Amino acid sequence: MSVVKSALSDADLKTVGEALQGALVDLVDLGLVAKQVHWNVVGPRFRSVHLQLDEVVASARTHSDVVAERASALGVTPDGRAATVASTSAIAGVPEGLVKDADAVRILVDALGAVITRMRERIQSTGDPDPITQDILIGLTGDLEKHAWMFTAESA
Amino acid sequence: MSVVKSALSDADLKTVGEALQGALVDLVDLGLVAKQVHWNVVGPRFRSVHLQLDEVVASARTHSDVVAERASALGVTPDGRAATVASTSAIAGVPEGLVKDADAVRILVDALGAVITRMRERIQSTGDPDPITQDILIGLTGDLEKHAWMFTAESA
Amino acid sequence: MSVVKSALSDADLKTVGEALQGALVDLVDLGLVAKQVHWNVVGPRFRSVHLQLDEVVASARTHSDVVAERASALGVTPDGRAATVASTSAIAGVPEGLVKDADAVRILVDALGAVITRMRERIQSTGDPDPITQDILIGLTGDLEKHAWMFTAESA
Amino acid sequence: MSVVKSALSDADLKTVGEALQGALVDLVDLGLVAKQVHWNVVGPRFRSVHLQLDEVVASARTHSDVVAERASALGVTPDGRAATVASTSAIAGVPEGLVKDADAVRILVDALGAVITRMRERIQSTGDPDPITQDILIGLTGDLEKHAWMFTAESA
Amino acid sequence: MSVVKSALSDADLKTVGEALQGALVDLVDLGLVAKQVHWNVVGPRFRSVHLQLDEVVASARTHSDVVAERASALGVTPDGRAATVASTSAIAGVPEGLVKDADAVRILVDALGAVITRMRERIQSTGDPDPITQDILIGLTGDLEKHAWMFTAESA
Amino acid sequence: MSVVKSALSDADLKTVGEALQGALVDLVDLGLVAKQVHWNVVGPRFRSVHLQLDEVVASARTHSDVVAERASALGVTPDGRAATVASTSAIAGVPEGLVKDADAVRILVDALGAVITRMRERIQSTGDPDPITQDILIGLTGDLEKHAWMFTAESA
Amino acid sequence: MSVVKSALSDADLKTVGEALQGALVDLVDLGLVAKQVHWNVVGPRFRSVHLQLDEVVASARTHSDVVAERASALGVTPDGRAATVASTSAIAGVPEGLVKDADAVRILVDALGAVITRMRERIQSTGDPDPITQDILIGLTGDLEKHAWMFTAESA
Amino acid sequence: MSVVKSALSDADLKTVGEALQGALVDLVDLGLVAKQVHWNVVGPRFRSVHLQLDEVVASARTHSDVVAERASALGVTPDGRAATVASTSAIAGVPEGLVKDADAVRILVDALGAVITRMRERIQSTGDPDPITQDILIGLTGDLEKHAWMFTAESA
Amino acid sequence: MSVVKSALSDADLKTVGEALQGALVDLVDLGLVAKQVHWNVVGPRFRSVHLQLDEVVASARTHSDVVAERASALGVTPDGRAATVASTSAIAGVPEGLVKDADAVRILVDALGAVITRMRERIQSTGDPDPITQDILIGLTGDLEKHAWMFTAESA
Amino acid sequence: MSVVKSALSDADLKTVGEALQGALVDLVDLGLVAKQVHWNVVGPRFRSVHLQLDEVVASARTHSDVVAERASALGVTPDGRAATVASTSAIAGVPEGLVKDADAVRILVDALGAVITRMRERIQSTGDPDPITQDILIGLTGDLEKHAWMFTAESA
Amino acid sequence: MSVVKSALSDADLKTVGEALQGALVDLVDLGLVAKQVHWNVVGPRFRSVHLQLDEVVASARTHSDVVAERASALGVTPDGRAATVASTSAIAGVPEGLVKDADAVRILVDALGAVITRMRERIQSTGDPDPITQDILIGLTGDLEKHAWMFTAESA
Amino acid sequence: MSVVKSALSDADLKTVGEALQGALVDLVDLGLVAKQVHWNVVGPRFRSVHLQLDEVVASARTHSDVVAERASALGVTPDGRAATVASTSAIAGVPEGLVKDADAVRILVDALGAVITRMRERIQSTGDPDPITQDILIGLTGDLEKHAWMFTAESA
Repeated sequence: MSVVKSALSDADLKTVGEALQGALVDLVDLGLVAKQVHWNVVGPRFRSVHLQLDEVVASARTHSDVVAERASALGVTPDGRAATVASTSAIAGVPEGLVKDADAVRILVDALGAVITRMRERIQSTGDPDPITQDILIGLTGDLEKHAWMFTAESA
Repeated sequence: MSVVKSALSDADLKTVGEALQGALVDLVDLGLVAKQVHWNVVGPRFRSVHLQLDEVVASARTHSDVVAERASALGVTPDGRAATVASTSAIAGVPEGLVKDADAVRILVDALGAVITRMRERIQSTGDPDPITQDILIGLTGDLEKHAWMFTAESA
Repeated sequence: MSVVKSALSDADLKTVGEALQGALVDLVDLGLVAKQVHWNVVGPRFRSVHLQLDEVVASARTHSDVVAERASALGVTPDGRAATVASTSAIAGVPEGLVKDADAVRILVDALGAVITRMRERIQSTGDPDPITQDILIGLTGDLEKHAWMFTAESA
Repeated sequence: MSVVKSALSDADLKTVGEALQGALVDLVDLGLVAKQVHWNVVGPRFRSVHLQLDEVVASARTHSDVVAERASALGVTPDGRAATVASTSAIAGVPEGLVKDADAVRILVDALGAVITRMRERIQSTGDPDPITQDILIGLTGDLEKHAWMFTAESA
Repeated sequence: MSVVKSALSDADLKTVGEALQGALVDLVDLGLVAKQVHWNVVGPRFRSVHLQLDEVVASARTHSDVVAERASALGVTPDGRAATVASTSAIAGVPEGLVKDADAVRILVDALGAVITRMRERIQSTGDPDPITQDILIGLTGDLEKHAWMFTAESA
Repeated sequence: MSVVKSALSDADLKTVGEALQGALVDLVDLGLVAKQVHWNVVGPRFRSVHLQLDEVVASARTHSDVVAERASALGVTPDGRAATVASTSAIAGVPEGLVKDADAVRILVDALGAVITRMRERIQSTGDPDPITQDILIGLTGDLEKHAWMFTAESA
Repeated sequence: MSVVKSALSDADLKTVGEALQGALVDLVDLGLVAKQVHWNVVGPRFRSVHLQLDEVVASARTHSDVVAERASALGVTPDGRAATVASTSAIAGVPEGLVKDADAVRILVDALGAVITRMRERIQSTGDPDPITQDILIGLTGDLEKHAWMFTAESA
Repeated sequence: MSVVKSALSDADLKTVGEALQGALVDLVDLGLVAKQVHWNVVGPRFRSVHLQLDEVVASARTHSDVVAERASALGVTPDGRAATVASTSAIAGVPEGLVKDADAVRILVDALGAVITRMRERIQSTGDPDPITQDILIGLTGDLEKHAWMFTAESA
Repeated sequence: MSVVKSALSDADLKTVGEALQGALVDLVDLGLVAKQVHWNVVGPRFRSVHLQLDEVVASARTHSDVVAERASALGVTPDGRAATVASTSAIAGVPEGLVKDADAVRILVDALGAVITRMRERIQSTGDPDPITQDILIGLTGDLEKHAWMFTAESA
Repeated sequence: MSVVKSALSDADLKTVGEALQGALVDLVDLGLVAKQVHWNVVGPRFRSVHLQLDEVVASARTHSDVVAERASALGVTPDGRAATVASTSAIAGVPEGLVKDADAVRILVDALGAVITRMRERIQSTGDPDPITQDILIGLTGDLEKHAWMFTAESA
Repeated sequence: MSVVKSALSDADLKTVGEALQGALVDLVDLGLVAKQVHWNVVGPRFRSVHLQLDEVVASARTHSDVVAERASALGVTPDGRAATVASTSAIAGVPEGLVKDADAVRILVDALGAVITRMRERIQSTGDPDPITQDILIGLTGDLEKHAWMFTAESA
Repeated sequence: MSVVKSALSDADLKTVGEALQGALVDLVDLGLVAKQVHWNVVGPRFRSVHLQLDEVVASARTHSDVVAERASALGVTPDGRAATVASTSAIAGVPEGLVKDADAVRILVDALGAVITRMRERIQSTGDPDPITQDILIGLTGDLEKHAWMFTAESA
């Protein structure tokens, strides 16, 4: 069942829909991973990393909402349920329990890196079929790369 | 590894820790489920339900953070990762794809009901070992019951 | 007709429902009484008492809404109509016409005292059947007692 | 006892005083009635009507304060006590218990209609004796008629 | 020299212009007098009266600007210079030096009373020639009468 | 089809309805004209006139909404469509293309003048049938006359 | 007469100028149409649709200003006058008089659809001659498609 | 009668008191003069000068209040009544009626210059007896000199 | 001398009064200690610890005010004078002079630990005599435990 | 141990350091004393004095932070611990228990007077060695003298 | 030394890095030039140009920060030091000393024109290697072109 | 060419003008240097130092504007162009490329130290010729010394 009659061809819609669904899952998981570390980080840099992680959470939540509503606007039903996120996210697992501050920084560098790599592929694939979707992905990837720089700078 | 030396006995800590971990998972999943329906709802009541669901998301996010940080404050490491949420949540699955507005209301009535039932049990179990945790659970359950009333009233 | 299927037993619901209905009536009337004196007070302390009374009105309005919505959330229909308030309020009548500032202070000390006495009884009766309702009553009674202290201090 | 030496003749003051006292009672009751339905409405339109009613409450509270203080400014003591409201309001009673959403809309159309009819008479009677009072009544009646239009449009 | 070609006849313009010029002078002086007492009041009620007087100043400044700009909008040049205010104000002089709090209240009751009397005459005279000017005068006189009530209530 | 049963007689309603419909068209067009000049003005005074015009736009938009909703509140359906505006506005056409700053000021003096003349007639005609509508027209005409003064002062 | 010496060739400027002028007219008309329905909608969903339409108005007004100022920045004089809008808009007429809520939703689905179709063509044509204009059109079309999804979802 | 027992010797208090009284009168008059021109200015620069003058008014009002309350804090009763201002201000009269924009700028340059000259003398005389008063005068003179620069720059 | 006639028995009042007085002293001293370290901390983590300490100060100030006013509301006179704080606080002394950042963290872990231990005892003792006081102590202890977790996490 | 290499000579630093340490203690104690009276004041003027005292607290807290950080900026370690405050403050003790409103005013007049006397000496001593410190002391003493005037005016 | 491992090839990174470094220098210098004229402009249009220039400063500062942080995010170290800016900026020198208002406008038209020309080249060169950088440059160039239009319009 | 006729003698003006021009250059360069390090800092303390540097930038920008406008107010034309800053700043060069966090702290300690030394000389030289300029320099130097303390404390 689809409510929106899309302006895109079926092939284009499939390409764009997969890009948006993939982006949604990665962003929801990024938010959950960042919160998990936000709660469990320890070490001298606790406060700084704890606060920085909440800025990643805020970015991830804002972008995931934009991406999911873009899918809906094209007539593609987004899927951001926990099981879907758990099974299809780009992010490797984060360990349970306490996380030392230096490890927290490394986990975020890796998680952001994995998401950014897939986002850059999606920017490539969506440009022709739907420049509006591409523009959204360009904007959020720039934001994720800024977060990645900051965590990378802290691991120097 | 635990950083905080808790004021509670081991037995009390186990009881309270399980209550907080369970509450965390239920609240994270409530937020994900409410967002999923927020994106996929259709029908004449779309706008009203769409907006109402974001208020549930805001409540679920605020309360899950308080609950997780209470666990950390007691020396219990909270686990809010997607896989943990997917496998231990109180909420029965929400269907993929579009959701009619009346179904959306019913899904929320059920999801909130399931979470509230378990929260009321946690209020019982935590009163003696840690009244501070109990007070947090009382406050958030009152808030969830207000959301539940509103969705129930809409299904009358 | 009731829309919400309450988690409480019938006996508990009756106890809690009566406490909430009683609290609602007392708080609505407290707001009306405080406004009545707010408009009719005279004397050198006019401005101070006039402003202080509006803070009581704000408290009474906020708490009455919380109490009424708690009743609805439990499946009890709240009744805050003028006739119900006029016939069942805890507050003795306030005289018509102008009120000297010292009398205004005394009227509020008495009105708040009468409401607080009944609220303390409700705190006792609701603790077992519904700790969430009890928590709401504890919070608002603390607020009323702070208002009562301030008017009492002014009558010293 | 009156503190303000009015600029109006005794006859004019009687006319204006009665108009203001009547308006006060109607507005206080409108606020109580709108809150009563706000708490007890059920049905698919619950959220929309619930929110809309709080805007009526806000209007009623703001205007009743202006009207009562206008009376005081003229040396007329306003009476907004519950018993006075219960016995002299323009609004026919609102039923106890739950209210279906369509009934809620109809109750408000009727309540606003009754108050507006009496307000228009007061606008007529106060123009000569006190144009300042008339100007206040004109402004608030325009606001009430806007609320009335909105509820009427929903019953179309 | 006049820039605006008025929509009013010369006779009407003269009537309205005199009303506005008179209102301007009274309001500017009311602001100066209220500030003078604001700085020089002493006595147990110092703080309350000091704050209350600044609310009169705020009203007087706002209304004087509206009145002067209404004159300009009609092509009448307003005159709010100190010498003009000193020689044509409705307000009897305020004594130099310290002012006891009870005297401060009485000075304001008198000053507001004198201004209100002249404003009510201006409301009468401007209704026919320019209802827009009349509407402005009605609004500000209602505000001044509210201030007058409050000071009168304090002298009860 | 009309949803609101008006309190006015048919004749009064016709008078008031025509006044409101005329006012609506004039105000919508005033907003469009002011925006047109806002975008196309050139000359040394560009920035000042550009900003001033957006204040006219804000006034025109606010007042047109109030006027249209007043019509709806009386059961008269307002018509603010482009074709209606183009064919019935009081404002003479504004030239296409760039507008020198001195010309921009003159265009606004003329446009405001034309609208004000018709508004003053509507104030006359609506006073008896509906003082509430008249009060709205008085208020917005005063605002338009203030804008007119400012542009006139700049052309001196 | 043109003040800005454009960085674009004459051919590119013509293409871009026509795209911007077309977009301006469509957006101004979208704002007028949405307001027209905002004032005239009736039916049980009145409030929800009434509020939703004002969000379309806000989008249309913001985007039309950006588009017109982009034209001016390129040396193209934008034309947003009522007659131009009435004769060249993409939107089919909206009927006069009252509009049932379901019809209101359909009118907006159609109006937004017509505008979006033309905007997507403009995105295609402007990419090469002026990527800055294209970026503006991409952003606003994404916003319009979000509005379109919401109205479509309500008609499901 | 003096309420405050000053920390200054009688001679110092006389010096400081005269400086503060003089500063008060100059600042009150500056505010009145700036408002007078604000209302009566005409010419192409009307809007710019009109707005700029209100910034002078805001400065004058803020500083006059600080100066008067400093006098009171030292036990000196400030005198800011219209007649005192009219007879002792440093500012030469401002002509009645309309003021061309270039003349408005010149009037302000002269008025600010006259006040600044006297303020610099007061800074000299108060440094020894009361550095706190001097600090206040230094701060406000710096602000007046900034206003003076801006008007001077406009007359270049 | 006591102004408030307490609702508690003398024995209960003694218990509750001692709990509140003890809590007040601990909280006032916590605020002074946190400020002392805020000013004297040095080391690479200076900025992070400096900011974090001001959040403890804010908590301590807010809670001490609530606790003292609760005592007053019960008719118990709170004592927060420096000498009382210096002689009865739960917190061991903080050294004079500069404090290394790691030491600063340890000082806060110890200070918060000492206060929390005594607060948990007060929660036990006040539950029966006055649940309102207990509710206040539960809330503030939860907040202190959150601060304690954060400093502990930084010492891991 | 000192981290900052001061720009001042050792003798100058000693003078300035003692002035700042003395000012810090007086300001911290002023804040504690004002809070103590804020909680314990009774009498008809309770509300007015209660609010006024919190403004003294806010001033004392703001100024004490500026003074302590100025000391740190010069390499002097500030000491604001309870015992230091209790033993070296300029303020004579405040009695325990309830305080009548007139006594509260007198206590503040005395406390402010004692602090101001010592601050004026510090302004003298710090001018040569460090004009930046002197400027801070001048500013805060002016603020304290304004508070002193207000309490003195109330005791007239 | 580079901390970020870039997703771009070395050749692409060189192209994008040079574009970002060039853009950074131009934007920093634009901010300095606009401030220089902001301080030194004279003439009748002083106030208008003075304010307008601060809007250019705000744009230049915001965009330069985004551009520099984009470079860092790609592993390119940005260089915004005064000497680098002085030697590599696109903007021809601005004369020292006073600047007549008409000259100020011309200086900005030229400065903005020079920067825009180079920005358009950077938009071309960065599209393929890094669409995220291109998107940033498109956005800021659109903003600069809007500023350029406004200054150009003022020189018409 | 000078527009302002200064109140100072030529010799005094030369002294004050040189102090202000020197202060301007130092402050503009401080802002550029702090931004340069803000973008290029790396290491575990990245986030803390990155944020702290933006507070220095904000201070430097605010103070440079005040200083430049003070120069203009005295008739001295300020020079804040890049080349002037590059050649006359008090701050030794900052290295290009990445900066380790500990080095960043040291660079700021040195830069602030160099600027403060020159500012203290300017405070000495300007006191007699222009106390208003001196007051500005005292205020900003106190602010810079607070920044210097914080960076020094981090290097302990």
